[in-house]
Amino acid sequence: MKRYKIIIEYKGTNYAGWQIQKNGVTVQGVMQDALIKLFGREIELTSSGRTDAGVHALNQVAHFDADTLIPADKIPFALNTLLPMDISVKSCEITDNSFHARYGAKSKTYVYKMYYSPFRSPLLSDTCHWIVKRPDIEIMKKCAELLIGEHDFKFFRAAGSNVKNTVRRIYSIEIEEKDNLISIAVRGNGFLYNMVRILAGTLLYAGMGKLTIQDLQSIMEKGDRKRAGKTLPANGLCLLKVEY
Amino acid sequence: MKRYKIIIEYKGTNYAGWQIQKNGVTVQGVMQDALIKLFGREIELTSSGRTDAGVHALNQVAHFDADTLIPADKIPFALNTLLPMDISVKSCEITDNSFHARYGAKSKTYVYKMYYSPFRSPLLSDTCHWIVKRPDIEIMKKCAELLIGEHDFKFFRAAGSNVKNTVRRIYSIEIEEKDNLISIAVRGNGFLYNMVRILAGTLLYAGMGKLTIQDLQSIMEKGDRKRAGKTLPANGLCLLKVEY
Repeated sequence: MKRYKIIIEYKGTNYAGWQIQKNGVTVQGVMQDALIKLFGREIELTSSGRTDAGVHALNQVAHFDADTLIPADKIPFALNTLLPMDISVKSCEITDNSFHARYGAKSKTYVYKMYYSPFRSPLLSDTCHWIVKRPDIEIMKKCAELLIGEHDFKFFRAAGSNVKNTVRRIYSIEIEEKDNLISIAVRGNGFLYNMVRILAGTLLYAGMGKLTIQDLQSIMEKGDRKRAGKTLPANGLCLLKVEY
Repeated sequence: MKRYKIIIEYKGTNYAGWQIQKNGVTVQGVMQDALIKLFGREIELTSSGRTDAGVHALNQVAHFDADTLIPADKIPFALNTLLPMDISVKSCEITDNSFHARYGAKSKTYVYKMYYSPFRSPLLSDTCHWIVKRPDIEIMKKCAELLIGEHDFKFFRAAGSNVKNTVRRIYSIEIEEKDNLISIAVRGNGFLYNMVRILAGTLLYAGMGKLTIQDLQSIMEKGDRKRAGKTLPANGLCLLKVEY
């Protein structure tokens, strides 16, 4: 048995997220079906973490164990013929047996994309959240600076989630504007459920004048989820990179 | 009765093209259904020209006649609530009664997009054609120069099309490369059926070494469709702009 590390790109629009569930088609489910067809037996695929329904990934990392004569670098070609157009395996290599896609992840980078326009754009809306007016990017950047570092991010945690340790470290937040497109790239050592979408929603609130830097400071001090921004929709979110 | 000029953006993936037909959902059909709902009577919508099944438009122009109290600049908002997510009306203005979206068009700009990568990209493939290897962009640009100007483009005409006059003028062809994405923007006074997709296919053949500049010259002199490149798929094509 050898351990394989693969990188997967997917468009999450038509999936109920990464993780297999009883109702709904999932990326993990479709991937494992392809692995069964290729290797003739059930194979468990472990990713760096689940992504929610509708969330995309440019470079999701996963591992599985298999005993096969197919050379590792040919496996993506073989799997892609078995996969639908919205999932693609981009690389495959044999890795150390101790490699673990989830527990070994040192950092992850997510990007949240939005565009401003009086009217929604059919050519952007699969992968970008639509807002009507241009927000104040400078204020968004100033608020982003406050969030960098190690914090108890319980103020950015989805209601109902019950993780014990809510301390996470954000290494960087890069906000870029190109034409009418704004992207917020967040690199951190881990993220709470919905954290990036709430973070993007909070920065957007700041950019729209609905929240000041002082408000954000107070939210962070008091751990107050209710006063932070709303959870932005899944379509704007994409898992960009996982580092080990 | 006043004449209205509108600009429409659509993602063509799920449509059998612009023009209404008996079988298949079309952009014109869906638009006219929305117009009926808004104005309470059948309204004919005339565009700058039909786009084929799967082809997108960033700025398709169309006109219709209506007698309404709704201010022109509110019509896009009203129509968009009646339209699916992959069609959006971006502007509406009252125009001269002599304006005609099709006959008045002086030039059109189409862009054909492709990306190179060993593996297909789910996040790009809705709007870009996938090729495996990077073509030679410089040779593509040199071939593009040959095509600029007025020519009898019968060598770029889809088999079976029966237009009498196949002379068209290409004003410019701009080829740009960004990361692994190549875009070919073609501005001309009009295009034959499939002409832009065959043009892009021919430039791609040149970039792949399947066709030399001398071959292209000979194809143009002899009007030889068979030796030109193949028609690239619809997903990479987008109507960018119509000028009047």
